[in-house]
Amino acid sequence: MDNKLMLMIPGPTPVPEPVLLAMAKHPIGHRSGEFSQIMAEVTAGLKWLHQTQHDVLVLASSGTGAMEAGMINFLSAGDRVLVGSNGKFGDRWAKVAQAYGLQVDTITAEWGKALDPEEFRTRLDADTSRSIKAVVVTHSETSTGVLNDLKTISGYVRSHGALMLVDAVTSLGAAHVPMDEWGLDMVASGSQKGFMLPPGLGFVAVSAKAWEAYKTATLPKFYLDLGKYKKAADQNSNPFTPPVTLFYGLQVALSMMQTEGLEAIVARHHRQMTATRAAMRALNLPLFAADAAASPAITAVAPAGVDAEKIRSVMKKRYDILLAGGQDHLKGQIFRVGHLGFVGDRDILTAVGSLEATLKELGFDGFTPGAGISAAAEVLAA
Amino acid sequence: MDNKLMLMIPGPTPVPEPVLLAMAKHPIGHRSGEFSQIMAEVTAGLKWLHQTQHDVLVLASSGTGAMEAGMINFLSAGDRVLVGSNGKFGDRWAKVAQAYGLQVDTITAEWGKALDPEEFRTRLDADTSRSIKAVVVTHSETSTGVLNDLKTISGYVRSHGALMLVDAVTSLGAAHVPMDEWGLDMVASGSQKGFMLPPGLGFVAVSAKAWEAYKTATLPKFYLDLGKYKKAADQNSNPFTPPVTLFYGLQVALSMMQTEGLEAIVARHHRQMTATRAAMRALNLPLFAADAAASPAITAVAPAGVDAEKIRSVMKKRYDILLAGGQDHLKGQIFRVGHLGFVGDRDILTAVGSLEATLKELGFDGFTPGAGISAAAEVLAA
Repeated sequence: MDNKLMLMIPGPTPVPEPVLLAMAKHPIGHRSGEFSQIMAEVTAGLKWLHQTQHDVLVLASSGTGAMEAGMINFLSAGDRVLVGSNGKFGDRWAKVAQAYGLQVDTITAEWGKALDPEEFRTRLDADTSRSIKAVVVTHSETSTGVLNDLKTISGYVRSHGALMLVDAVTSLGAAHVPMDEWGLDMVASGSQKGFMLPPGLGFVAVSAKAWEAYKTATLPKFYLDLGKYKKAADQNSNPFTPPVTLFYGLQVALSMMQTEGLEAIVARHHRQMTATRAAMRALNLPLFAADAAASPAITAVAPAGVDAEKIRSVMKKRYDILLAGGQDHLKGQIFRVGHLGFVGDRDILTAVGSLEATLKELGFDGFTPGAGISAAAEVLAA
Repeated sequence: MDNKLMLMIPGPTPVPEPVLLAMAKHPIGHRSGEFSQIMAEVTAGLKWLHQTQHDVLVLASSGTGAMEAGMINFLSAGDRVLVGSNGKFGDRWAKVAQAYGLQVDTITAEWGKALDPEEFRTRLDADTSRSIKAVVVTHSETSTGVLNDLKTISGYVRSHGALMLVDAVTSLGAAHVPMDEWGLDMVASGSQKGFMLPPGLGFVAVSAKAWEAYKTATLPKFYLDLGKYKKAADQNSNPFTPPVTLFYGLQVALSMMQTEGLEAIVARHHRQMTATRAAMRALNLPLFAADAAASPAITAVAPAGVDAEKIRSVMKKRYDILLAGGQDHLKGQIFRVGHLGFVGDRDILTAVGSLEATLKELGFDGFTPGAGISAAAEVLAA
């Protein structure tokens, strides 16, 4: 049905009506006092969300642009970095590092499994010369629905002394990412995820320790030079013309998030993850990630006896629900349900109910009709 | 008056209501067939606007990000580039080149004057070893309202064989920028200018000759790697999550531009420039750029006997019209009237009428009341 699409992909995520309408307002001048006030307000909101006293900068970019900025600003050619990789995005950060001539060591885990923090400890302990300058970890691996144990890993990194650089693109706003408490040096994210906004803004939070590294870092940069953003942000301004209307939306979205409260937001994502996973289990659809490593933002499902792409196709055509497919070698093997950002408990029931009808249409008889909804309802009603 | 602001700065420029409303629509998935259709349509529209058969790529970035991408993708460290600089943006491209370790030669002109094409010819003729790999020129210098003679310069560059890299940020959509006819190898621009959109999208058009240079260019890049954008664009897709709602706006804006027609758009900007300049002359407010070098997008005025910043302040407070000030050493010396993008002839009369009232309020008696409107009307009514 036209104009009826419901997004349940890990991004773009649903956008609340007040945010959409705010973005339909006419732009103002980005060098005006009025825009400086918006900058001041959203900066305060971003610090709240990141649980930090440090800088949080806003770029016109995708999450990848933000993450690249968060890597290249603190390193020099030939520097050694340790990249955790258990999915498409971990792989991508290794490629970014290679593109800039960094020496890249990796710690990998099979797609669908979490990175083992003890491997980080071992590798960092062995680096007695402290040649590893930075460790890069993807908190929530969007491609597989796995949440890595960032807290434990960052503890080891802190002991070692390297910079802890974090892709929090699909964890921020879904899970706690307490930047200061965990000692994270850089946290990158994008607007089309937990922020409840369309794509177009990238966020980079930077610790004092990272700014120290910035002083001697020599990788070339200009548009992605975070020093320029900090200098401007200190005046509630921007080095380059910012996406003014997306800032309007950000202002409203952060205000909505603050009204809901961080604990409530995290609890909501956890509850919806639990309900979604309970439903998949009840429908005999195998979960791709183990419970202990499940992302509160995305549930990946590896159906047996029914084609993942056919499920996605019927869900879209008949029920106007967009699910994500598998990426790279997981194409056709899994589907992914996003429950990230502006998602109500009702949406989970909607998705599960539609999935049951889809399975019926596809002739999959490996489940008891109603079992998915029943399992989800039990979690949500608890 | 709240919510009454009229933008007459060189960006962000006014956004038509159908574009604003299109951007308030809910995002769709950027990997969907529906989004591919939008990509195909806007790509065709962008080629039309650039008058090119070559690729036009869309980035989530400001104009600076687009321009940086358009420089670094075709060059390697140590390459020699010749940068024309007669304003803030020309200066900026020299800084970008330096940040990447390029050897930068410059041809300068005083701010407010056009670059002399003959200096380019001389410098290129002298380069018998063909060591200059690229020439960078800002077509319309936003900081001063000067239009450089890109056609003549690009002819000399073509004879030499270097790449012709162009900042068309405030010329595209205001003046003809016939990429193929003039042999331009890269044309960069941004959404918040002639495109009648809010900021957030950067555009980079790339010639076949530039793609040849791309193959051997080694400056590091990932988010700004145009090869990734081309590979995806060839499939009507994007390498990174695109700003979906800004694409909705782009689709509508390009359609509006095609309905108006390129000749009509260029004629409108020329007429409004001429009317604005005639009004300033009639009000005895000295123009900062000579007629022969005037940008159709921005008119810079260097008032004598009345303070430029006071004019801007009264125009904003009393008449809700935002004018731009001078940048860098021109701060306080000039004000700039943007007549770029979604500007009707009525807007010019509005601005001139308000300027007359402002001058009166400031006690400036060096003009005949009504003379500005009379001069503008004469041009517009012709």
